[in-house]
Amino acid sequence: MTNMPKSAQVGSHAVIEKDVHIGENVVIGHHTVILQGTKIEDNVTIGCNCVLGIKPGVNQRMRKISSPDVPLVIQAGTRIGHLVSIYSGTEIGKNVFIGDHASIRENVSIGEDSVIGRAAIVELNTMIGKSCTIQTQAYVTGDTILEDDVFIGPCVSMSNDKYMGAKDYDLKGPQIKMGAKIGNNASLLPGISIGSNTIVGAGSVVTKHIEANIVVAGVPAKKMNT
Amino acid sequence: MTNMPKSAQVGSHAVIEKDVHIGENVVIGHHTVILQGTKIEDNVTIGCNCVLGIKPGVNQRMRKISSPDVPLVIQAGTRIGHLVSIYSGTEIGKNVFIGDHASIRENVSIGEDSVIGRAAIVELNTMIGKSCTIQTQAYVTGDTILEDDVFIGPCVSMSNDKYMGAKDYDLKGPQIKMGAKIGNNASLLPGISIGSNTIVGAGSVVTKHIEANIVVAGVPAKKMNT
Amino acid sequence: MTNMPKSAQVGSHAVIEKDVHIGENVVIGHHTVILQGTKIEDNVTIGCNCVLGIKPGVNQRMRKISSPDVPLVIQAGTRIGHLVSIYSGTEIGKNVFIGDHASIRENVSIGEDSVIGRAAIVELNTMIGKSCTIQTQAYVTGDTILEDDVFIGPCVSMSNDKYMGAKDYDLKGPQIKMGAKIGNNASLLPGISIGSNTIVGAGSVVTKHIEANIVVAGVPAKKMNT
Repeated sequence: MTNMPKSAQVGSHAVIEKDVHIGENVVIGHHTVILQGTKIEDNVTIGCNCVLGIKPGVNQRMRKISSPDVPLVIQAGTRIGHLVSIYSGTEIGKNVFIGDHASIRENVSIGEDSVIGRAAIVELNTMIGKSCTIQTQAYVTGDTILEDDVFIGPCVSMSNDKYMGAKDYDLKGPQIKMGAKIGNNASLLPGISIGSNTIVGAGSVVTKHIEANIVVAGVPAKKMNT
Repeated sequence: MTNMPKSAQVGSHAVIEKDVHIGENVVIGHHTVILQGTKIEDNVTIGCNCVLGIKPGVNQRMRKISSPDVPLVIQAGTRIGHLVSIYSGTEIGKNVFIGDHASIRENVSIGEDSVIGRAAIVELNTMIGKSCTIQTQAYVTGDTILEDDVFIGPCVSMSNDKYMGAKDYDLKGPQIKMGAKIGNNASLLPGISIGSNTIVGAGSVVTKHIEANIVVAGVPAKKMNT
Repeated sequence: MTNMPKSAQVGSHAVIEKDVHIGENVVIGHHTVILQGTKIEDNVTIGCNCVLGIKPGVNQRMRKISSPDVPLVIQAGTRIGHLVSIYSGTEIGKNVFIGDHASIRENVSIGEDSVIGRAAIVELNTMIGKSCTIQTQAYVTGDTILEDDVFIGPCVSMSNDKYMGAKDYDLKGPQIKMGAKIGNNASLLPGISIGSNTIVGAGSVVTKHIEANIVVAGVPAKKMNT
């Protein structure tokens, strides 16, 4: 059973499955679906036509994930837009903002005060720190670590699979250190790291480790004289 | 109250909030949500699972917009696909086509006969002229001006923030003049302008102002001998 | 009339229009819309908030397609995520996986065991072979041929229109031969071909035909010494 507090505002045709926890002063939009086991803390706002708490599928072409019974947890004060999908096994911190059409997979953690942009995608097994900004349509691949205060520009692309499907499960995404900024539509290759406070120019292709506190740009990305 | 004309076709479980204006011969798909105050003119067709007339949120990480009470207006003959989100304070001209999964923010104007492609995104405070084509997955950032007859190829990326979040509210997107054409997956930097009838090659990175009537390509984009 | 087998599991507020065929052991999520004429074979699983079987629109700016009455067919064992849109006139093979937020147009065929990633888009008149992987946010343009075992990395962009809207209907997408692999965020120009087992590096711009069994990278993409 799901206990719905009197302080909740729930839209028309919303579907709240069983064993969902709903905190105080939660707003849920029309047609939104909240699947079994999801935990929504106080003062969370959710838009219309979302699907939250999706259980990862099992497919012979996809990785098996260990802990299928860990719920989706959305901490207090977070705002979620419209037409958003989020999987179970993920924890969204306090006062996070998640834009419309965004999608967040399982085993992800997002630190407080971070922003996940419109139509941005965060794949599985990824950690995003506090006060990060992931802009519109950016793609954060699986097995990725973003420290605090990282800025990912719009349409940035990442990969975690240097064998492009030829080897199973040997996957490692980028590691982006505190305060680094990635320009729009840059491409990051699997397993590279980007040092703290480094800036990567728009449209760059980052093919190797990049040290801290510099500016790089180009294809492949090289240090700029600044 | 919303007055629904007899000529309207409204799908199952559609949610039409109060104070919505619906013209003659309007079609609204299943599960679509039309929020308070939206104005839909004659002969408009809207697909399923859309959310129209979204009020901009107020978030300490996001800009405040002046006029929260300006409605979304969709002019006559416009067709909107499925799973689309559009904000209030925006005006969509006559006979516009908006593809499935597209998202359009507040304070946007789109001129008549323009096409906004599938999963394309138009951010806030942006003006798009008449007979423009914004192709699939293209990203039109905020504070951008597209004159008439502009062509934006698929997956084109733009930015309006040269400080990447480091300074507040000093934002300027590209200005693209009449008849210019931008190739697929090109990256446009903040504040640049592209002259009329100029062509930007696919995958180019445009880092500065580009004159009219030329062809540019590369990283960074340079004039081609044609 | 639609005959719903007793073995089907249908979510809340799902809308199944008339003349839909539903096989045995089909699962349909909450709020999903299945439009008239769609054929869903045995053991197909469909998520929430999808729209399946969309009839192509007729618009003066868009191509007319010949056979409006060919249904969407989803073969046995295929899994479809949440918030997905698929058009009529398309055939999805057996045991295909289609990620959340993906969109597939009319006159498309997808071979068995292929994966269409999260938010990936496949445009009209395109053939995708068996055991292909189209990763997250990739864009497969119209009039494109992918042979079997092709890997398309995340955020790859393609175009089929070398005149960028200036000529009508002279459209040809890439042809990608068996076993080729395209790195993340690469840009493929209209009409180019990529030979079998060739690898295209991340962020490359492919401007011409590429032979088989080589590695290319850069802007424009050139053969690497490997």
